[in-house]
Amino acid sequence: MATINENFLKLQAGYLFPEVSRRVRAFQANNPGAKIISLGIGDVTQPLAPAIIKAMKKAVNDMASKATFRGYGPEQGYDFLIDAIIENDYNSRGVDLDRSEVFVSDGAKCDTGNILEIFGLDNVVAITDPSYPVYVDSNVMAGRTGRANEKGQFEKIVYMPCTAENDFIPELPKAHVDIIYLCFPNNPTGAVATKEILSKWVDFARDSKAVILFDAAYEAFITDPDIPHSIYEIDGAKEVAIEFRSFSKTAGFTGVRCAFTVVPSELKAVSSDGRAVGVNSLWSRRHSTKFNGASYISQAGAAAVYRPEGKKQCRQIIDIYMSNANLIRGSLAKLGYEVYGGVNAPYIWLKTLGGMKSWNFFDRLLQNANVVGTPGEGFGPAGRGYFRLTAFATPANVKEAMHRFAGV
Amino acid sequence: MATINENFLKLQAGYLFPEVSRRVRAFQANNPGAKIISLGIGDVTQPLAPAIIKAMKKAVNDMASKATFRGYGPEQGYDFLIDAIIENDYNSRGVDLDRSEVFVSDGAKCDTGNILEIFGLDNVVAITDPSYPVYVDSNVMAGRTGRANEKGQFEKIVYMPCTAENDFIPELPKAHVDIIYLCFPNNPTGAVATKEILSKWVDFARDSKAVILFDAAYEAFITDPDIPHSIYEIDGAKEVAIEFRSFSKTAGFTGVRCAFTVVPSELKAVSSDGRAVGVNSLWSRRHSTKFNGASYISQAGAAAVYRPEGKKQCRQIIDIYMSNANLIRGSLAKLGYEVYGGVNAPYIWLKTLGGMKSWNFFDRLLQNANVVGTPGEGFGPAGRGYFRLTAFATPANVKEAMHRFAGV
Repeated sequence: MATINENFLKLQAGYLFPEVSRRVRAFQANNPGAKIISLGIGDVTQPLAPAIIKAMKKAVNDMASKATFRGYGPEQGYDFLIDAIIENDYNSRGVDLDRSEVFVSDGAKCDTGNILEIFGLDNVVAITDPSYPVYVDSNVMAGRTGRANEKGQFEKIVYMPCTAENDFIPELPKAHVDIIYLCFPNNPTGAVATKEILSKWVDFARDSKAVILFDAAYEAFITDPDIPHSIYEIDGAKEVAIEFRSFSKTAGFTGVRCAFTVVPSELKAVSSDGRAVGVNSLWSRRHSTKFNGASYISQAGAAAVYRPEGKKQCRQIIDIYMSNANLIRGSLAKLGYEVYGGVNAPYIWLKTLGGMKSWNFFDRLLQNANVVGTPGEGFGPAGRGYFRLTAFATPANVKEAMHRFAGV
Repeated sequence: MATINENFLKLQAGYLFPEVSRRVRAFQANNPGAKIISLGIGDVTQPLAPAIIKAMKKAVNDMASKATFRGYGPEQGYDFLIDAIIENDYNSRGVDLDRSEVFVSDGAKCDTGNILEIFGLDNVVAITDPSYPVYVDSNVMAGRTGRANEKGQFEKIVYMPCTAENDFIPELPKAHVDIIYLCFPNNPTGAVATKEILSKWVDFARDSKAVILFDAAYEAFITDPDIPHSIYEIDGAKEVAIEFRSFSKTAGFTGVRCAFTVVPSELKAVSSDGRAVGVNSLWSRRHSTKFNGASYISQAGAAAVYRPEGKKQCRQIIDIYMSNANLIRGSLAKLGYEVYGGVNAPYIWLKTLGGMKSWNFFDRLLQNANVVGTPGEGFGPAGRGYFRLTAFATPANVKEAMHRFAGV
């Protein structure tokens, strides 16, 4: 008699974004004339940069003739992409990496979930509250948690609250922890970490032999020159951190699918007999056994992001989004909202007026302004009373949405 | 102190194909002039069909302008592809499916590995010997096995030997089993299952409330009209079977990445309190939490496989491979080899001459003929003394390889 993985039964309601979609669909069905503007799910709206389109067309053409056809690629990704990543994202910031330390994949969502497979179930996991829901849900599925309490928080997870009171930077955990999720620039709060803050975390992880899972999916949105883009800019970070990156937001690849994960050769974790085991070789084994490489066409497109034309064009697109972010920040501040993020990140995190609950604010905004955002508590209980807006809509829609906000 | 998943330490040597690559690279380095022909890894060589190229170019163009740009797609896949799958692969063979039962992904290798996450660790797993190595390795990683014995077989797995003596069709297990892997047309043996054989397995699974993981990645190579292409052609199969399909071999998508998995709504497994839980909703939750949809461009290409031009062109490519298979079969039989498969499958399974060990035969073939194949024992101990050749090379290379075989 086949049995299910019982841990799935512990999961709460639907995954956040499907629930948002459900409510929007229901509203649209009852209000077919409403012109809804979404500042909700973090999906891009600008088309791909011309340099990327050109590279992907060439890649499709390569697949059309015998001499240039590509079948299975290396599971870890093509060297042409890995080399471009190392040179542009790391060497340029003083970080050396070997090809064997970069793993190209089809998405950071997959990677942040799948990485858990190489670690023991006994690890104590620390997650910021609020956070990207995949961090919690994938740990629940794996069996690293107990049940959820009435606040929706799971036993065994060490939650690290991030609110206006601590500038949305988590305190070092007082409890013992083994795996720590950090995301900077942060989704959903838009907070960033200085070198000092990251150094504190790297030191903490080295002292406690913990592993940091560092989600840097939004590094391209950093505008402040003093903010590190990679955790490896901190001395000693290679001994303790895995870094996740994505082309989804950097280059509009949400529908193209390409990302990468860095697992330094220095990083070790222990086996039950106390031996230090290289984590890179474990992930390499997982990656080559359960993954078959990202699409050649997607990888060819990703490589174009690093060439001069591609860089320039992607920067122009990011500037459009950051100009949206600026408009949202300014407009909401004028309306009396407390507003965070949106300076080094494409996310604006606001406090609802009068302490309104996040889902109530969601419904009110949808009904009165036909604008969709994401309720803060969807990212964790510390997000109650907060609300996330993204800067990824078109400038015209952002302008219109800000206009409508005035009447909410 | 972060700990590793100890189960990874149980894994044997390298994954089969990396080990093959290693030996080939070493040989090539020592013999730079050797013109090596690979009939080893099952990778395609024919370029994509023109109808697929056309659809993918259009999809790339869609990404270039605001009006047609696609960001995140539905995690489960676009309806335009799901509908084409249901109509062409299932309705045409008398099988009804709902959209919610088809999950588009980036590869069957990922799906056959990841599907295990939704089942309990207490399930007893039955795997044919020989088999595609991912079935065993992904169960080892998940912790559903003990250690390997000297034959390389893992405690707790129920192995079902498939040899010439049973026509490469496994016997029903006498031991209790909960999850059963079946792959027809089979990789590596090329065996196919008749309706009678599949009915026997479906009945067995229904009686024991087991789940069949049915790998049908090679169904497009079936030439015999009486052989079922889907396990759902068998009455009652929807209650017990998950089916995996892929565009990798059907349409040459090994570098494009698109596949799908069918999880019928009727399929249940039990929770510890004895409740029957729908497996579809568990997989849906896993898929939407840890996966972000296959590339839009890949899905657009896959949909073209089902349109009249695409169908015709893909059929012509498959005919090239099956003509290769026919040549390999005939040539080897003339040389005195016992040869299996290659009629309804792109794999030819041969017995080495004089009982030579598989890896020795591999080395001899590489050295004397500069031809690469895959040692049978790489697929499991019952594969000892067998050897796999694939029909995916170019016709010219297959002809040349068969010529060289005569001198081995």
